[in-house]
Amino acid sequence: MSLLKDIRVAILATNGFEESELIEPKRALEKEGAEVVVISPENGEIKGWKNGDWSDTIKVDARVDQVSSKDFDSLLLPGGVINPDLLRRDPASVEFVKSFFEDHKPVAAICHGPQMLIEAGVTNGRTMTSFTSVRKDLENSGANWVDDEVVVDSGLVTSRSPKDLPAFNKKMVEEFREGKHAGQTA
Amino acid sequence: MSLLKDIRVAILATNGFEESELIEPKRALEKEGAEVVVISPENGEIKGWKNGDWSDTIKVDARVDQVSSKDFDSLLLPGGVINPDLLRRDPASVEFVKSFFEDHKPVAAICHGPQMLIEAGVTNGRTMTSFTSVRKDLENSGANWVDDEVVVDSGLVTSRSPKDLPAFNKKMVEEFREGKHAGQTA
Repeated sequence: MSLLKDIRVAILATNGFEESELIEPKRALEKEGAEVVVISPENGEIKGWKNGDWSDTIKVDARVDQVSSKDFDSLLLPGGVINPDLLRRDPASVEFVKSFFEDHKPVAAICHGPQMLIEAGVTNGRTMTSFTSVRKDLENSGANWVDDEVVVDSGLVTSRSPKDLPAFNKKMVEEFREGKHAGQTA
Repeated sequence: MSLLKDIRVAILATNGFEESELIEPKRALEKEGAEVVVISPENGEIKGWKNGDWSDTIKVDARVDQVSSKDFDSLLLPGGVINPDLLRRDPASVEFVKSFFEDHKPVAAICHGPQMLIEAGVTNGRTMTSFTSVRKDLENSGANWVDDEVVVDSGLVTSRSPKDLPAFNKKMVEEFREGKHAGQTA
């Protein structure tokens, strides 16, 4: 199929991304014809995380301070404990994430990925989920946290963990196909 | 010296604790005559983190669900990205931390350690610091976050990272020696 023909998706990640949460959504997006670009504050390669330890590296396509969100239709934020903790310290990455919300573009975030949404200040009043350890921080940021395999709120797609990937990928493709949502704001 | 003679300190940690943030404060406390007990949701041993990878293990003295905060005078929470993310998912650990605040006992937390204070719901209105990536979550929880090597607020001692350990250890010993503080509440 080609539900996402002519759609350009940014994946923002760095070292410590949960391997399945980057690789599997990327495959699901490409299967539907999307162009997927891996963006990072790092040059060259970033190292994944799998079964509680460092795993394989993947190639970085572009550094975050050398691209603009204007060049993308939608954004995917994988999780991993270490990955968003590193990303949220990087002002260019935080600004990049915020821009998608300012432009009403769909965003999908899984597991610890929503920590970047807290850092970008875009969670107040939004209905969403995350890995359980991020729940309290999301609630304190004003989000309405719900315990479900996938939660969709006006172009914002969130899931809890790798076991939710089939439901996450399905809703992500739907929302990325729909494009901009007025309720998606910063 | 023996500034902490007859003082019993709990260190609450699990896999992924930043090695220096457990070992160095433990040494500083024992040097002053404190009895230091390593508590964890895990049995046996827990694995540290150093220079961006897993490091040495240390022995766990008691499991958190088999002890009471009543048996301790004060609490130390080391950091590490993975350690508090695991601890905050464990209800017995969260309750253990909260009890120290309910009993007005001094608590020291460094780096990502303050994530456990957010989870225990004891940060509202407190002046404190943390690793930079935890700042936003602390502010959203009602804390007054300041950028200093060590911050003391009525029996609550916090620091930002391993480089602050000398200042952190000094203030921790002072507060643990003073004992209960009325302003330390849950």
